[in-house]
Amino acid sequence: MQRPVSGEDRIIERYFKPLARHPAALGLGDDAACLSPRAGYDLVLTTDTTVAGTHFFPDDPPETIGAKALRVNLSDLAAKGAVPVGALLALSMPASVEDSWIAAFAEGLGRDCVSFTCPLLGGDTTKTPGPVSISITAIGEVPAGTMVRRDGAKPGDLVVVSGTIGDAALGLELRKRFISGGLGDLTEAQAAFLRQRYLLPEPRLALAALLREHAHASMDVSDGLAGDLAKLAAASGVSARIESARLPLSSAAHDALSSEPGLLETILTGGDDYEILAAVPPDAYPAFAEAAGKVGIGISVIGAFGDGDGVTVEGPDGRPLSIAKGSYSHF
Amino acid sequence: MQRPVSGEDRIIERYFKPLARHPAALGLGDDAACLSPRAGYDLVLTTDTTVAGTHFFPDDPPETIGAKALRVNLSDLAAKGAVPVGALLALSMPASVEDSWIAAFAEGLGRDCVSFTCPLLGGDTTKTPGPVSISITAIGEVPAGTMVRRDGAKPGDLVVVSGTIGDAALGLELRKRFISGGLGDLTEAQAAFLRQRYLLPEPRLALAALLREHAHASMDVSDGLAGDLAKLAAASGVSARIESARLPLSSAAHDALSSEPGLLETILTGGDDYEILAAVPPDAYPAFAEAAGKVGIGISVIGAFGDGDGVTVEGPDGRPLSIAKGSYSHF
Repeated sequence: MQRPVSGEDRIIERYFKPLARHPAALGLGDDAACLSPRAGYDLVLTTDTTVAGTHFFPDDPPETIGAKALRVNLSDLAAKGAVPVGALLALSMPASVEDSWIAAFAEGLGRDCVSFTCPLLGGDTTKTPGPVSISITAIGEVPAGTMVRRDGAKPGDLVVVSGTIGDAALGLELRKRFISGGLGDLTEAQAAFLRQRYLLPEPRLALAALLREHAHASMDVSDGLAGDLAKLAAASGVSARIESARLPLSSAAHDALSSEPGLLETILTGGDDYEILAAVPPDAYPAFAEAAGKVGIGISVIGAFGDGDGVTVEGPDGRPLSIAKGSYSHF
Repeated sequence: MQRPVSGEDRIIERYFKPLARHPAALGLGDDAACLSPRAGYDLVLTTDTTVAGTHFFPDDPPETIGAKALRVNLSDLAAKGAVPVGALLALSMPASVEDSWIAAFAEGLGRDCVSFTCPLLGGDTTKTPGPVSISITAIGEVPAGTMVRRDGAKPGDLVVVSGTIGDAALGLELRKRFISGGLGDLTEAQAAFLRQRYLLPEPRLALAALLREHAHASMDVSDGLAGDLAKLAAASGVSARIESARLPLSSAAHDALSSEPGLLETILTGGDDYEILAAVPPDAYPAFAEAAGKVGIGISVIGAFGDGDGVTVEGPDGRPLSIAKGSYSHF
């Protein structure tokens, strides 16, 4: 008997082996990857699953599905101050998935493996009677003892976010309203921008080293700013107060909010931002902001941490907002 | 706003935090685990997904589902000569899953996390419109440079397997025949044994150190002995010849095969054995067998590797078998 070449072997050989450029991957030809960690570094490990019908639309471009599945993990690494080392992919697909879909999925993933220097170390492909499901475990490294944790915020620290908040949630809202209409008077370019922000987040890896240097605590905003801030504050044993008027908004989000003020809750709780939320001491902020600007990422102060507990969001009129749904939860 | 306690938070807090005893897990209270690798060790990384309806029956006991999902990964670590460090769990569940199911799933998983010294380091729980799906990434360690690879078999090495082969495949066959009848004249105890071998494999972690010491190459038998042997031989650039008469069989498998000789193909190709398949030089074998016996695991020689390529399985009459389906493949 010659070695039978199964469909599974063929998929791995053809589509995923080219993504496995790290020597630890052993060309995906073994049962496991073998990684020699760098002396003096800690490994940062995170795993996230994206499922068709829950995290993305089944008819999203397959190039972006693979890329987003990786990027949401890289966003976690960035928030922890870590530099990517590599990733493991567990891909479940129904039998109906066509080769062209797999090829495009792998191409999008592979492009990001290269551009974010996060090669594939290993994986598993399996059949499922359900929808496409992608679990990625990403591995990053930080100099030993320097991972930026969620529980380090101190009273007096500034609440800092990167980029703009709410775009992805509005992009998703646009997708949901597709049949019945858009958001206010957005131009097509603005709508396309919001949709793209939902489809393909930008992991803020360029901030990783700066967070290690300047931040007391950090996490990425994946489940909605208000709820994620509440998690960070609770982990740190502090309170937080932010002002909605100081939220960094894209022009598209600004215009959508102007025409439909009720969207503020979507912006604050919608999730999928994949921006950085950090606690930064006031005296460290100027240097952090300047260095972030130099790597092309804007950061903004939206409030401060204090004693006690709980999160207060000041509305446009200066009075605390009551937010029904703090953040996205699966159950 | 106080920190909202979502269903997802509650599930993690209640069911999975008790499994996260490793300091690297940070009590599952951060975005990522932070692992300080031991100096002088390589990390061995593997990921495997198990999906309801593909890898297990949806009505299997939830205790065994979580345990098996971990064990199939630990089996890979064992085959590589690695000792477990910890695991990350990505669990997708439909909204219909009840708390009692999650509790039992976590209990079975947690029991194995303790007994195999493989604490939970992190994870992700997510909703799916599909069936329950579990991706586990397991991390092990080996002294630097000692991982037992798949590609090290040499001509003249013995083909060695641990335990008994084919039980799980026959257990699955029994499950499939449930309505229409059993296998031959098996006693109920024999049938229960085979079903249990399918339900809950035994990762051969006690062989890990011995494989590092005695084996040229190793992998675990997950997709069927014949096909997995073909993979190992191809990776090593050698041929292999095994004799079906030398296959180690449980009494249940022996009796099933006696009454239904056609089951030999199921035994050789069915998969889910999670036994060790290794290439061992003849002069190392006696010490390996003696040490394996001392840790309570029987090993058997079933053939030898040679020059050339391809795998030959000698049937009971000494003539090569023709095997239609080398191993399990998902696509």
